[in-house]
Amino acid sequence: MILAGGAGERFWPASRSAVPKPFLRVVGGRSLLDATVARARRVAGRDGVWVVCGPEHAARIRRATGLPAARVLVEPRRRDTAAAIALAALRVEAVEPEAVMAVLPADHYIPDVRAFAADLRRAARAAAAAPVLVTLGVEPTRPETGYGYIRVGEPAGEEHPGLFRVRSFVEKPDAARARRYLRNGGYLWNAGIFVWSLRTILAEIERHAPDLHAAMAPLRGRRPTAASVRRAYQNAPSFPIDTAVLERSRHVWTHPVSWHWTDVGTWESLAQELGVTAGRSRVVDGELVFDDRGGNLLWGQPSRPVALLGVEGLAVVDAGDALLVARLDRSNGVREIVKALKARGRSDVT
Amino acid sequence: MILAGGAGERFWPASRSAVPKPFLRVVGGRSLLDATVARARRVAGRDGVWVVCGPEHAARIRRATGLPAARVLVEPRRRDTAAAIALAALRVEAVEPEAVMAVLPADHYIPDVRAFAADLRRAARAAAAAPVLVTLGVEPTRPETGYGYIRVGEPAGEEHPGLFRVRSFVEKPDAARARRYLRNGGYLWNAGIFVWSLRTILAEIERHAPDLHAAMAPLRGRRPTAASVRRAYQNAPSFPIDTAVLERSRHVWTHPVSWHWTDVGTWESLAQELGVTAGRSRVVDGELVFDDRGGNLLWGQPSRPVALLGVEGLAVVDAGDALLVARLDRSNGVREIVKALKARGRSDVT
Repeated sequence: MILAGGAGERFWPASRSAVPKPFLRVVGGRSLLDATVARARRVAGRDGVWVVCGPEHAARIRRATGLPAARVLVEPRRRDTAAAIALAALRVEAVEPEAVMAVLPADHYIPDVRAFAADLRRAARAAAAAPVLVTLGVEPTRPETGYGYIRVGEPAGEEHPGLFRVRSFVEKPDAARARRYLRNGGYLWNAGIFVWSLRTILAEIERHAPDLHAAMAPLRGRRPTAASVRRAYQNAPSFPIDTAVLERSRHVWTHPVSWHWTDVGTWESLAQELGVTAGRSRVVDGELVFDDRGGNLLWGQPSRPVALLGVEGLAVVDAGDALLVARLDRSNGVREIVKALKARGRSDVT
Repeated sequence: MILAGGAGERFWPASRSAVPKPFLRVVGGRSLLDATVARARRVAGRDGVWVVCGPEHAARIRRATGLPAARVLVEPRRRDTAAAIALAALRVEAVEPEAVMAVLPADHYIPDVRAFAADLRRAARAAAAAPVLVTLGVEPTRPETGYGYIRVGEPAGEEHPGLFRVRSFVEKPDAARARRYLRNGGYLWNAGIFVWSLRTILAEIERHAPDLHAAMAPLRGRRPTAASVRRAYQNAPSFPIDTAVLERSRHVWTHPVSWHWTDVGTWESLAQELGVTAGRSRVVDGELVFDDRGGNLLWGQPSRPVALLGVEGLAVVDAGDALLVARLDRSNGVREIVKALKARGRSDVT
């Protein structure tokens, strides 16, 4: 189950309401969504892949992925991940009630498909055998302050090798804490990739998010109509699955993984991913005709060459109809720009 | 005599070979050329204004200024200011041999037209009465390192109030010297505005630049044809009038002026002119939709809003088909960009 509901605000101006981040070819030569579908197919087969998205993106996603319409679930409005996962679980339950579901964000970058598939299968076997919510936890490779962490507990038991209980989830740490986590071990990055049986996740939603359960209950057991989904979403509260369920549940395990993963969450993380370092620039698209300092990221237009003079550590993003020049280390603030533009009704460029 | 032969490389990418700086509306609401013609008319009248330019700009200059074709002198190739001034002096001499000629760069900004006109007339009276080369010298208001300086000597005499002998011309100074010049006085900015009789400048060219004199001599005394000018330019050496004549002549005076003047020579000087300071940005054109730091200069496109995040002291120049992001205090380096692009045959964007 691929969650493609994000707004992708942090990749403005390349990403927009109309073209959110999963559609962008930021790295690896194809869109993040295409790559995610390919990874999912490797584990779930051609007929096991589903997508949840907003109504404005459904047609484009069907075209891009070739998925049949029935497996592109459309949320009538954005209600964060808990509602999307509840809708997805109920929809699949009607077809295959014993299924195990993996939840994959549509906009992450995981180049090692084979290792990913092997670990996801292992997590799925555990989720099929035990009533637990399994999260993949990525071994940290740097003291990252942009991710949440999973504090690892005891091993899950001999019959589940490689799986551990989760002691707690930790908010994005400050730099000192992040360094400590990395040094001491026992902490993993929370990649937002979850695996569970439908039975378990629906029971845990019922227990920890009863309002959401109540709102979604009318959808249970039959193929939902657009009207019934709309009604359910009118009542559904808006929670992330992390705070609504995972942080409250006592049945959460993690499967540590060590392959390369990034959520490509900001221009800075993309720059890092592409190998921008002091003195070395990278170009996603467009043409950099002059760059005397380096250390910059250019996302340009082929038709508009760019010259950078005396600057370093910048993201220069020419989206054709809007332009961003940002310090890479401030690129979290891109959300503020989108917020300000939306507040001023600038739907032309958001 | 307005010299409009410059390449305007330092305003790349807004200025180009095809659209050099005089055509740009950088400040004051109209093009620098239009404003220069208006200033010149104030002193020389409708029929006293001439322009020297390259063949690629002649038609546009005629259209923009409304000058008759005969008063737009076309240089067949660029040969720096000494040749342009020699051509101009010979051409006017054929019509009005007793004339006094003021040489005005086409791309400077002088908002106080009235004060400018009064001082130019005063300089012209001196140049008509004495066999001297008069340069206007601007009273420095800051320790500028981007201009050449004039070292002021003795007063020119009672019959020429306000005029002084020039002791020497000084190359662009370093910061310490520029501060000393400003503190001690006795130094003026060399604004490149000259006034002299045709007789005097032609005699001084003959004395100090005999090769140029020889190359241009065939043009003397008759209306030159395109072919004769082409031949003359084939032999003409390429010198700035400053080094070829003014720095060698013993008959150079200066008229100190205290009105506001800038050669708008770089993005930095334009930013200064427009009032960019720490925390305060300025927009020449286009739309700045976000700017959390300030202190930036935007030269944009109306159709492409720009957001600046975490950056200050930058020039962001979106010329439609090319983009520059430069530190304002490094904007002298824009020439390097143009040089590099020309070396790579990129006439599409130079």
